[in-house]
Amino acid sequence: MNIGLDMMGGDFAPLEAVKGLQLYLSGNAAGVNIYAIGDEALVKPLLEEHKVTSPSVHVIHAPEVIGYHEHPTKALKEKQRSSIAIGFHLLATGKIDAFISAGNTGAMLVGAMYSIKPIEGVMRPTISTVVPKLNGTTGLLLDVGLNADCKPEQLNQFALLGSLYAQHILRIANPKVGLMNVGEEEGKGNLLAQATYPLLKENSQLNFIGNIEGRDIFFDKADVMVCDGFTGNIILKLSESIYDLANARELGNDAYFNRFHYENYGGTPVLGVAKPVVIGHGISNAKAFGNMISLAAQMIESDLCGKMAEQFSN
Amino acid sequence: MNIGLDMMGGDFAPLEAVKGLQLYLSGNAAGVNIYAIGDEALVKPLLEEHKVTSPSVHVIHAPEVIGYHEHPTKALKEKQRSSIAIGFHLLATGKIDAFISAGNTGAMLVGAMYSIKPIEGVMRPTISTVVPKLNGTTGLLLDVGLNADCKPEQLNQFALLGSLYAQHILRIANPKVGLMNVGEEEGKGNLLAQATYPLLKENSQLNFIGNIEGRDIFFDKADVMVCDGFTGNIILKLSESIYDLANARELGNDAYFNRFHYENYGGTPVLGVAKPVVIGHGISNAKAFGNMISLAAQMIESDLCGKMAEQFSN
Repeated sequence: MNIGLDMMGGDFAPLEAVKGLQLYLSGNAAGVNIYAIGDEALVKPLLEEHKVTSPSVHVIHAPEVIGYHEHPTKALKEKQRSSIAIGFHLLATGKIDAFISAGNTGAMLVGAMYSIKPIEGVMRPTISTVVPKLNGTTGLLLDVGLNADCKPEQLNQFALLGSLYAQHILRIANPKVGLMNVGEEEGKGNLLAQATYPLLKENSQLNFIGNIEGRDIFFDKADVMVCDGFTGNIILKLSESIYDLANARELGNDAYFNRFHYENYGGTPVLGVAKPVVIGHGISNAKAFGNMISLAAQMIESDLCGKMAEQFSN
Repeated sequence: MNIGLDMMGGDFAPLEAVKGLQLYLSGNAAGVNIYAIGDEALVKPLLEEHKVTSPSVHVIHAPEVIGYHEHPTKALKEKQRSSIAIGFHLLATGKIDAFISAGNTGAMLVGAMYSIKPIEGVMRPTISTVVPKLNGTTGLLLDVGLNADCKPEQLNQFALLGSLYAQHILRIANPKVGLMNVGEEEGKGNLLAQATYPLLKENSQLNFIGNIEGRDIFFDKADVMVCDGFTGNIILKLSESIYDLANARELGNDAYFNRFHYENYGGTPVLGVAKPVVIGHGISNAKAFGNMISLAAQMIESDLCGKMAEQFSN
């Protein structure tokens, strides 16, 4: 399999991307070719310095970079030789099977939606985050910010996308799907939640267990937790701050609270588009990059996008 | 001042209410009369047993109780001799200056809105929660569940109600008001947040500091954090569960994480109604009851409701 990695994305690029690649290659990387996309003059010496000399790493020269504050659509159009534009070009033409970047999030989303396109039948792609459960397992929360205002039918689709991700990537058999809400009983919630509940209940592709509340997020009740992107983004950022709180209280060595650190999950895949796209945190470090490459490899290996397309064609 | 306390509300009633009363009276309770509303046959022996014999405690007999699962409006109408109905009757007629109950939340809200009524100019009352800030101060989040779907103008009013609560009860001079959102810049967010931002910005009664994100909730950025009740309720319950997480990880003795325990704030006042009404958690224990009585006393002493009425008449 061939994975494209944007070497120029993230606050510490390209150094942390190089170190992340090194970390990934030190594990089981058999059969994986990495296309390291970035400015040759910067990337090649760093790869050598960090002894990333595996023949499975190929540098693809990209002389331009899309900055964090550039307008996504405009930048993608004007900077055809940027690492993100080249990455999507390689992905769209099948030269690579997945693309990863910790660069301009907007540009990554625009690229995912317009050069890769949503799976047929998917109204809106979604982004998710993994959630560390107290019992040691991992849950999935979505949408976490791509869709601030949602329609009930979109949440119903996110539930299915999340459920397939939980099955094939998190390896949870028959994942329990919960609707984020303010009470347990059917009929509770805002208008969106009230209208979404019956759709989830009737969806035979889901193992819907009903409403879940804020107190259930880190506990066993549901594996896949569905909400609009406004609510989900607030939960995501609040959850990330729990790590900071634990750290500030010098509880940063607790194995559970450590799981709230973003680097442990690395990046968020864009779910509902036809090919694997993984977006990293701006502050991605080596560990985060390493984990994003592993995630992309899992997404390719499990043919997650193919399985999603299959379910949506039903 | 005269405070009414429902002795029959809460999972451990009337015992914990009695113990909470005892706890409160062991502190500085000068000038406070407590009207303990409940079944005499149950309440009086417990008060004696716990040596709550102060002449400032008056038992008001209420032979009926509204259960947790009763329909609020129906129960209030049919059970006129219930502790909640009697409490609101005493409050409406001026026999007591504040009413506290850990009983049926719906009945408390219905009572607050229909027997006490909103302050003139307030579209919808709101409920809030205090938020433990890492720096040791206390913030306020509202709405936390009374209004699942909101209009921008309602959020603007919640901001003012919360700001006055922060000034007069939390003793924060010129409290910083933030709009819960998914990004820092104006224009971010769902349709509600986008439409609310300009209202807050133009409201000269507020010290509006702009958008805040999930990661800012426990930090210094804003003292008063405004959102719809759906989002707020999820944040509230998630935050309460942080205490459970810390406890499960045997970090329960951390002074900061302990502040997430509901008993330390006791109950939530209904803001925007004409008289002080405090609603407790079903699981309220003695400490929670004691803190709710203190809160009611502070609300009376500061004439919070009067100050709110004044601001809304401007």
